[in-house]
Amino acid sequence: MATENKRQTQGKTGSRKPNTRTAKTPAKKQDEKNTAARQTTRRYNNNNRTKSKKAPQKPALPVHITMLGGLNEIGKNMTLFEYGNDAFLIDCGMAFPDEDLLGVDIVLPDFTHVEKCRDRIRGIVITHGHEDHIGALPYLLKQMIFPIYATKLTIALIESKLKEHGLSGKVPLHVVKPGDVVHFNAISVEFINVNHSIPDAVGLGIKTPLGYVVHTGDFKIDCTPIMGSMIDLPRLGEIGKEGVLALMADSTNAERAGYTASERVVGESFSNLFKKAENKRIIIATFSSNLPRIQQIIDAAVKDGRKVAISGRSMVNNVNIAHELNYLSMPEGLLVDIDMIHRYPKEKMTIITTGSQGEPMSALARMAFSDHRQVDVGPDDYIIISATPIPGNEKTVGKVVNELMKRGCDVVYEKMYDVHVSGHACQEELKIIQGITKPKFFIPVHGERKHLQKHAQLAKSMGMPAKNVLVTDIGKVIELTADKMSVVGSVPAGRVLVDGLGIGDVGSIVLRDRKHLAQDGLIVVVAIIDPVSGQIVSGPDMVSRGFVYVRESEELMDEAKAIARRVLEECCQRHSHDWSTMKSRVRDELSRMLFQKTKRSPMILPIIMEV
Amino acid sequence: MATENKRQTQGKTGSRKPNTRTAKTPAKKQDEKNTAARQTTRRYNNNNRTKSKKAPQKPALPVHITMLGGLNEIGKNMTLFEYGNDAFLIDCGMAFPDEDLLGVDIVLPDFTHVEKCRDRIRGIVITHGHEDHIGALPYLLKQMIFPIYATKLTIALIESKLKEHGLSGKVPLHVVKPGDVVHFNAISVEFINVNHSIPDAVGLGIKTPLGYVVHTGDFKIDCTPIMGSMIDLPRLGEIGKEGVLALMADSTNAERAGYTASERVVGESFSNLFKKAENKRIIIATFSSNLPRIQQIIDAAVKDGRKVAISGRSMVNNVNIAHELNYLSMPEGLLVDIDMIHRYPKEKMTIITTGSQGEPMSALARMAFSDHRQVDVGPDDYIIISATPIPGNEKTVGKVVNELMKRGCDVVYEKMYDVHVSGHACQEELKIIQGITKPKFFIPVHGERKHLQKHAQLAKSMGMPAKNVLVTDIGKVIELTADKMSVVGSVPAGRVLVDGLGIGDVGSIVLRDRKHLAQDGLIVVVAIIDPVSGQIVSGPDMVSRGFVYVRESEELMDEAKAIARRVLEECCQRHSHDWSTMKSRVRDELSRMLFQKTKRSPMILPIIMEV
Repeated sequence: MATENKRQTQGKTGSRKPNTRTAKTPAKKQDEKNTAARQTTRRYNNNNRTKSKKAPQKPALPVHITMLGGLNEIGKNMTLFEYGNDAFLIDCGMAFPDEDLLGVDIVLPDFTHVEKCRDRIRGIVITHGHEDHIGALPYLLKQMIFPIYATKLTIALIESKLKEHGLSGKVPLHVVKPGDVVHFNAISVEFINVNHSIPDAVGLGIKTPLGYVVHTGDFKIDCTPIMGSMIDLPRLGEIGKEGVLALMADSTNAERAGYTASERVVGESFSNLFKKAENKRIIIATFSSNLPRIQQIIDAAVKDGRKVAISGRSMVNNVNIAHELNYLSMPEGLLVDIDMIHRYPKEKMTIITTGSQGEPMSALARMAFSDHRQVDVGPDDYIIISATPIPGNEKTVGKVVNELMKRGCDVVYEKMYDVHVSGHACQEELKIIQGITKPKFFIPVHGERKHLQKHAQLAKSMGMPAKNVLVTDIGKVIELTADKMSVVGSVPAGRVLVDGLGIGDVGSIVLRDRKHLAQDGLIVVVAIIDPVSGQIVSGPDMVSRGFVYVRESEELMDEAKAIARRVLEECCQRHSHDWSTMKSRVRDELSRMLFQKTKRSPMILPIIMEV
Repeated sequence: MATENKRQTQGKTGSRKPNTRTAKTPAKKQDEKNTAARQTTRRYNNNNRTKSKKAPQKPALPVHITMLGGLNEIGKNMTLFEYGNDAFLIDCGMAFPDEDLLGVDIVLPDFTHVEKCRDRIRGIVITHGHEDHIGALPYLLKQMIFPIYATKLTIALIESKLKEHGLSGKVPLHVVKPGDVVHFNAISVEFINVNHSIPDAVGLGIKTPLGYVVHTGDFKIDCTPIMGSMIDLPRLGEIGKEGVLALMADSTNAERAGYTASERVVGESFSNLFKKAENKRIIIATFSSNLPRIQQIIDAAVKDGRKVAISGRSMVNNVNIAHELNYLSMPEGLLVDIDMIHRYPKEKMTIITTGSQGEPMSALARMAFSDHRQVDVGPDDYIIISATPIPGNEKTVGKVVNELMKRGCDVVYEKMYDVHVSGHACQEELKIIQGITKPKFFIPVHGERKHLQKHAQLAKSMGMPAKNVLVTDIGKVIELTADKMSVVGSVPAGRVLVDGLGIGDVGSIVLRDRKHLAQDGLIVVVAIIDPVSGQIVSGPDMVSRGFVYVRESEELMDEAKAIARRVLEECCQRHSHDWSTMKSRVRDELSRMLFQKTKRSPMILPIIMEV
């Protein structure tokens, strides 16, 4: 890496334990840990900031930022932030596989470069508890342990994840609050309250000798949030006045004009829809991490004199965690076990469920396709899908809606009823952040190319010189000095595929084969040959799968068998016992005939056995 | 079929040739044919309508309508209309496969019932030339010939399709104009001009002794269309006054409030964008059948002093057909061969291309991924995607946009620039059609369940009694009498899958296997056993594809082989030469072990050979 030498000249000792006021003793029990973390982090105050200004300043080194995910893609957000010999990670998320990644369960960032820098990495700072920001953590932490800094709910969600992966108690977890500052030697990270579709989301004010680097995390501006308080624009403004070297900001909604509506408008829609639903059972699907949304459903149910049941594994999980941590408030006895819903009249029930994206195995999809153990839907059900399909999910959501309607359910799924608002800032909000942080350099993050590009245009439209805006890619090492931003190198970055228990064992060859098999199926040709006499002892036999309906294609299969036999006999007669040549001739001749007759190209697997 | 008997009591002779004033002599040459058709169809006039009123009326039979496609699905529109012994088909479209139909190229309606009624079917009436209305014609016509009635452009598109399938000259094709009436004994079909995203689209006024059945076809209300004239609302109003028994109307946009904008607004956007593009090459992707759009691009290019080149097979095809038939007007010398574009300065070129849906093999996608033979895109290109992604295509379109941006192109793809308008009516337009036709019964067609349902709600909101509105499914036989609409039976209807040259040979078993192979790949286990001694002579050998990267999984594969050998040996020792039991034990034990170690379930194909 081009920046390696510069760092070595700095000569600081690389230590695994962060030289900070936090995380001195990674405690075993959560409670102790939390207390410890809280004691060792501090709320910012002017006094503190004044002090740090007075501290003797060494000649400033450049800042290096390397995105390992989240640029030119949705998901697997992960950023390496380096200053001299000190580094830390921001987020460690997973991505969901594209449809061309056949059989792949989830996608992780490539940890190769993290492994290489592990001795300089002081910790991982997490902005919020969504899968695309925390989902890859267990996979990283199985390879190397770093202390984690995040807000209360985020830590709780991470803990539940670590437990699933057998990592409980093995990772130092530090709970921080907005306003807290964590120090990694020459740099520090301040947590700044932001609004998002999950509580406890934070942006980061990263203080370096060159000035602040502000990372918004995922955010929106919600002046009337349901949980927590409005995004801390005053603090962002203060930091802007102190001097922001660079801004990294969420580009998800950079294509959308105007403002994202407040979460509160959804609550108003719920009130109206609960009235409309009259004497029907209400079933609402939403994201299981959207606790403000869940709270609003609970509030509407309470107001309407209904009980609430929860369906779907992640929904049950998250409601439990949130309930224990007091993120959800509800009267005693409101929650009814999903197995007990039949004891209550339908018009007195509300079910909160997963499946708002039409996921085939989700609770709502199972209800739609009559495959849900406890919930049988019909004309007595009023179903609200409180979400917008994520691009790519339109069809699966549509399928679930159609199926529910065929069963006679009322289904509310359109935008017209305001049953969903986004968690990400639209153009006007993005401009406000630009305007109050007044960064020298701007790096749009968290989005596909089209989002990053649009976000870059926004910044330029506010007067930022083009050379101060950088739309780049994962793996690029961005160097920031006081007056220049440039790409100075690149490191391994890409995607690591998880399929079942296998991590990285599904690569391009396996995927290519799966795609081939998916398109046209396969034909296995087996023959036994006596290598001494050069005679076919048995076969060729043929087995096909996923190619044609064999019972109705006997003629074709007989013809194929005859060709295989002819080719093998020809080879044997020539006493050519080069099995690999023999196999490739069988493959070629069969392929040609089959394509001519069917315009399909099944995978052909010739197997030659010797006796 | 429940309606069969009633029809037989009618006792009319079923003849393959329609007893109408059209199509008496299916001529060989297109010109003659067209002339013949034109002579034998008539424009409606009041005189004619008065006459038909005076005709002696037999006691009215019920009307039967059976949708063979297009209900609860997008595509493969096909309807069988029957009155007594006379029947005709409306449209014969194909559908594109859902992503779970692995390897399938297109989807056809099931023709089983058409085959059964073939003697009573007098012809096929086509509403317009889109694939979902004409795409299945060649497949039907290869099985049985019927005369076809459609407007000029539609016939030209059908002819080009028949040519591809070797059916040229074998099918009587009759060109009709809006206002023409085709008679099938007791019933007649009048063609009514409508607006849509392809010229020459018509709705149908089907006159029966019970009154009119109006079928809108695909339509919108465009008061300022680019080609042809505004939808014939006056004629629909007249028919409404005469008495409409039932309305069948396009539900595609029933979820959308308001009106669909006129095609003309896109032209205005093009003018503005051509100014913005300044000295760049302009590349516009749109649907190849949207001739009004293509005309507007041509007009903008002419105004801007640019040449036009065409890219993409279907675009070249359609522009040729339209040019020959004078549907496109352009000055001599405007068109430049795509191979010659390098002779002109970039800022003087416009390329019209396919690929507006991000189709991986389309011209635009090939440009984006540097795989287009003649067009190499970069910062000198201004690219406009003049289309909205069809649900399900959002991601593929997004991929192409991202890729083009990475190459430095300007890309216009959002709705904000009005570079696309829909070809289908929104809610206010749908209400107008309801209001002026004043049908007794209403059958929403052409849409998924959610569209049909919303369309039904619209009709009810205008005062139609719920019992007069029918949301039903394909294969249901709808019976209309003067005062009742009901479902009286059902016939085979579904989907027939086309994969390569195979029609219907890919069914649920083949698809299930393809899905299995796509998810986890396969392992073939081969062993040779001597049936006399009961010994394993050779093997077991193992071949895997699409499961794991074998070179890095030797240990796992060795273990699998050991298990297969153990199971086979145990079976042999027990002198159990029941190969099928042996195979299923190998399959079970291998599956168990592999799932435990990898959480994957590859397909396991044990093959036992005898010597």
